[in-house]
Amino acid sequence: MGEAGLLNRLHRYCPTAIIGDDAAQFTPPPGRELVITTDVLVEGVHFRSSPLSPMNCQTMTAADVGWRAVAVNYSDLAAMGAQPLGITVGLGLPPDVPVQWVEQMYEGMAELLQTYGGVIWGGDVVRSGVVFVSITAVGYIDNLIIKRSLAQVGDWVLVTGDHGLSRAGLALLTGETDREIPALISAHRRPRPRLDVLPVLQSLGIDRVAGMDSSDGLADALWQICRASGVGAVLAQDIAIHPLLTSQFPQQAQEWLWYGGEDFELVLTLAPDYAQKLVQKLGHPAQIIGKIVAGDQVFWGEKSLPLTGGFQHFDPLA
Amino acid sequence: MGEAGLLNRLHRYCPTAIIGDDAAQFTPPPGRELVITTDVLVEGVHFRSSPLSPMNCQTMTAADVGWRAVAVNYSDLAAMGAQPLGITVGLGLPPDVPVQWVEQMYEGMAELLQTYGGVIWGGDVVRSGVVFVSITAVGYIDNLIIKRSLAQVGDWVLVTGDHGLSRAGLALLTGETDREIPALISAHRRPRPRLDVLPVLQSLGIDRVAGMDSSDGLADALWQICRASGVGAVLAQDIAIHPLLTSQFPQQAQEWLWYGGEDFELVLTLAPDYAQKLVQKLGHPAQIIGKIVAGDQVFWGEKSLPLTGGFQHFDPLA
Repeated sequence: MGEAGLLNRLHRYCPTAIIGDDAAQFTPPPGRELVITTDVLVEGVHFRSSPLSPMNCQTMTAADVGWRAVAVNYSDLAAMGAQPLGITVGLGLPPDVPVQWVEQMYEGMAELLQTYGGVIWGGDVVRSGVVFVSITAVGYIDNLIIKRSLAQVGDWVLVTGDHGLSRAGLALLTGETDREIPALISAHRRPRPRLDVLPVLQSLGIDRVAGMDSSDGLADALWQICRASGVGAVLAQDIAIHPLLTSQFPQQAQEWLWYGGEDFELVLTLAPDYAQKLVQKLGHPAQIIGKIVAGDQVFWGEKSLPLTGGFQHFDPLA
Repeated sequence: MGEAGLLNRLHRYCPTAIIGDDAAQFTPPPGRELVITTDVLVEGVHFRSSPLSPMNCQTMTAADVGWRAVAVNYSDLAAMGAQPLGITVGLGLPPDVPVQWVEQMYEGMAELLQTYGGVIWGGDVVRSGVVFVSITAVGYIDNLIIKRSLAQVGDWVLVTGDHGLSRAGLALLTGETDREIPALISAHRRPRPRLDVLPVLQSLGIDRVAGMDSSDGLADALWQICRASGVGAVLAQDIAIHPLLTSQFPQQAQEWLWYGGEDFELVLTLAPDYAQKLVQKLGHPAQIIGKIVAGDQVFWGEKSLPLTGGFQHFDPLA
């Protein structure tokens, strides 16, 4: 149908006031700091979903791709302490992708936006040999900026949820096993950006918090925070692992806990009393997993926690 | 060298204060409206430049790609009346692209940023079967927002510069002829976003201006403005065409004037006295090319100006 026809169909996902110019205009909330982030998903690298692939090779529907593409960006906003204002979408499409696939992808984006806020400001649709989705999200700091470099010796380290589930979901979807476990599949296809943590932080009157999201794995997040802050960490030997992981993937559970990636939880370090209150307020499965110490190493119990695990990541460059 | 090594090399193109978190923080100018735009360039569609292509098939160097990727976005900002604050870069790279190619592309981006302002806030580098560059630019409205929908009957229509040169440059680069004309080649490789027009508009105390950029061709811009404003236009029969076009490409000059595309000039409509003053201030090759009339058609002299020309666009979807 050509670019004009496709854009007309996609325009219904954008607020009408901002359609039809070279760029979109928006009014930032007065007196707030803004944050901006860009994340790109590429077919065959970050997802397998295309009407051009056989169904049994697909890890996601088009709607899942749309949801996920926005979710990974919103997770980056949450990791900075920012609430979303809006996104732009840079979309590469092979000429033979049906319009329905694209519309379903936008439905997935719209579903996430309805849940977490923000609008589609616009973007660009271009021809490409492979499907890619490059999303830029802009948000505003509501209260307190979260940075990797703000951890202090004596802080406790907490996670806002489970780790390893998304990797287990991917294993199910790529046929590493023939089981179907909806909770794991959904963890992979429909990650939830933890924007809900921000008002809880605010309600507790917390005045400093370090952290990032666990998109590249829990071990990576811990190392990044320690390096940026010039500190070390000691993690508890008895970190709780989700029972679906330990029961269904006993061999891989520990590896995926640390190195699975793409769980999009927040890894935060705070003064102990604040950490305790935050975990209480968030409830299970949030948990304290360790403490920040002097040094430049990350220990799990008495052993050093390697930065990278033994398993082959879906794509080390991504 | 892997993602971490590449990112380390690219970090020197970003201000140090904003490196190392999940998103970049920035302070918008107080009380200003912001605009945001995303444009994507794909190798083989929007440019041919890759260490993986033979040299005689390349239309641009890596530095040209970087320059151009930012320029097309900055042109969109200029078309809204906005000055740039910064960009994010979503970059897709085949695994075999040398780091030098990527660094040279960033050099091209840096060169443009030094000329026109704005910083690289960050972005994402992913593996992809094809090189693509998805840039998002954010700017602020300095004075007056420019919109396509603001044209009024009685306005004069002006262009800030020549049209057709970029298309002629492409013809030279793709071997449609074997001539070498640096001015045309440079028009294609190094388009200049017309951000310089904005302070001139401001200095004249102009209170309303309609317009857009001519990235998709002069005829397209005129039709878009007329449709968005619910007006028609009559263009002068004797519009000046650059002498390099009329002398070197006499057969194609007229076609490329209207439909060549990618000249990234501004097409503006204003009250006649303001239009006259603006063209005087900008000087040659800015020119008045017609006037806005009642109706819904665009005429060139007495004939209707078709929305699309007879030539095959480099890529109709792009």
